[in-house]
Amino acid sequence: MTQTNRQIQLASRPAGEPSAENFKLVETPLPEVADGQVLVRNHYLSLDPYMRGRMSESKSYADPQPLNQVMIGGTVGEVVVSKNSHFAVGDKVVGMGGWQEYQLVDANQRGVLQKVDTTHVPLSAYLGAVGMPGVTGWYGLVKIINPQAGETVVVSAASGAVGGAVGQLAKVRGARAVGLAGGAEKCRYVVEELGFDACIDYKQHKDVKSLAAALKAECPKGIDGYFENVGGMILDAVMLRANAFSRVAMCGMIAGYNGEPIPLAAPQLILINRMKIEGFIVSEHMDVWPEALKELGTLVATGKLKFRESVAEGLASAPDAFLGLLKGRNFGKQLVKLI
Amino acid sequence: MTQTNRQIQLASRPAGEPSAENFKLVETPLPEVADGQVLVRNHYLSLDPYMRGRMSESKSYADPQPLNQVMIGGTVGEVVVSKNSHFAVGDKVVGMGGWQEYQLVDANQRGVLQKVDTTHVPLSAYLGAVGMPGVTGWYGLVKIINPQAGETVVVSAASGAVGGAVGQLAKVRGARAVGLAGGAEKCRYVVEELGFDACIDYKQHKDVKSLAAALKAECPKGIDGYFENVGGMILDAVMLRANAFSRVAMCGMIAGYNGEPIPLAAPQLILINRMKIEGFIVSEHMDVWPEALKELGTLVATGKLKFRESVAEGLASAPDAFLGLLKGRNFGKQLVKLI
Repeated sequence: MTQTNRQIQLASRPAGEPSAENFKLVETPLPEVADGQVLVRNHYLSLDPYMRGRMSESKSYADPQPLNQVMIGGTVGEVVVSKNSHFAVGDKVVGMGGWQEYQLVDANQRGVLQKVDTTHVPLSAYLGAVGMPGVTGWYGLVKIINPQAGETVVVSAASGAVGGAVGQLAKVRGARAVGLAGGAEKCRYVVEELGFDACIDYKQHKDVKSLAAALKAECPKGIDGYFENVGGMILDAVMLRANAFSRVAMCGMIAGYNGEPIPLAAPQLILINRMKIEGFIVSEHMDVWPEALKELGTLVATGKLKFRESVAEGLASAPDAFLGLLKGRNFGKQLVKLI
Repeated sequence: MTQTNRQIQLASRPAGEPSAENFKLVETPLPEVADGQVLVRNHYLSLDPYMRGRMSESKSYADPQPLNQVMIGGTVGEVVVSKNSHFAVGDKVVGMGGWQEYQLVDANQRGVLQKVDTTHVPLSAYLGAVGMPGVTGWYGLVKIINPQAGETVVVSAASGAVGGAVGQLAKVRGARAVGLAGGAEKCRYVVEELGFDACIDYKQHKDVKSLAAALKAECPKGIDGYFENVGGMILDAVMLRANAFSRVAMCGMIAGYNGEPIPLAAPQLILINRMKIEGFIVSEHMDVWPEALKELGTLVATGKLKFRESVAEGLASAPDAFLGLLKGRNFGKQLVKLI
């Protein structure tokens, strides 16, 4: 075991689009492990769009990421030192370890570190389909959209960790699942691997009218539920095809992350179609996590919930991988392998 | 009893803003009353913003008003001929009699005509505070906003029949009620007569920033619920002051009724503040009407729910009164007295 930890800190806040200069790699000595604490060697770091929001200082649902501190992030790893009776060396764990190789945890705090079983589910999946992204998709689909058999559910960023779960969970419930993704390769994967009924390559559509026409073709009975990861033109187009009593789960608006204006063209459609639009943050609904993780874990273990990972190698690759994620360059759940 | 009926029909559809030329006054012979039917002399006609939507042919939640037929509308009146055992001559009734002096009703159809008690509630109130507008306010407030004591509820068009009910029902529930209305006189009425905590004259504010500042002053703890009757700039300003987990009941978007674009500037606030926005049409929620009418009727009968009427005299005045309503020239529930 090396005696140093390496971590990536936020060096500066982005003005508009973030860049590699906003991050810095820092070496720190490995901390002492006190009574009640556990030292975890992180195996995988999860990169997620929400991190972009934390990099800015503007008002959002969470406090901004502090400067010159390790970037926030979900991790899976293995306990390497334990001075806590609930954890043993070798335990596989999931937690919020941040962008670093080692994490010291006050393991008596409830919920900060969870032991996970890797018999049927691979460790990295606890950062994706059986982790925060999976539960995010589950919450928006089950608790907000609540699709009925025969209804049509549309999801943007369909090849991603959240979107992929949304469509597959919709299929399990007997709904028609239509994805939106960028590029023919991602769309093929969404249909052929994940089993969606259709996937629209939004890059082939330059305006709302064209995209709405494509949605009309793939959703002949209209749209009953929409899981929003993107915002902007896609939401406008979906609203033009929304059915009466349709539901929109608003999970991400990546189109506006750098401060671009992303007005909603026709809010009167919310009234005309008696729509419900609801924003949510999955970490505020911890009460549903056990139910969600049970379904997600079972579906992954039985091969019914498929996912794909985009793995960057080594901590130093994290900033570039994150910038690529914001541009949609990843293909599947973006991870960084740290070991 | 005269032997002719007079009615106002839709003569043409408006291109943009409607005008008096879109309507025509027609005399028709009084119909024969067949078995099971009832002839009602309408005393009051209700004029409501939803009628503007029906005048257009574009897709909305309801079929358009047919051309050359009597305009749709709620009425209260008195049974003058009855060939139905459930109704007697002299019964006071509420129904959808349309813009006309007499209405012939197949009174065996359940729900088309309701007997009402005018002992404690004046007949005209069944078109306002104890009728469709009152239930509309009740539904949005109780079923969507669901205010808790100490929360702040904002309502636009606060001096109107719907808005007035929303604020007073919010006060009954221990919430802070803040109205928006056009002009000092309406605002004074909303505070002094209806008992709102504050009312903002939106005509004093030329842009979103100015209106948001006024909302900040009157809603020092932010906005937890918003009842939307108007749309446009007001909704944008409210969203800038919306609290986490705030709810918007979307009832009307009068700002866009003539086809003006009314984009929502910052839909990302729905996510950032985990807002819920829900459109509704009160006629689709008939199951709650008994509960709503019970509370509204009790509050009116005991003087705890106040309202104001703007009464135009005679059927021929209906088109001008309706056009005035769309421009906010009415002050209180707009009625037409037909007798």
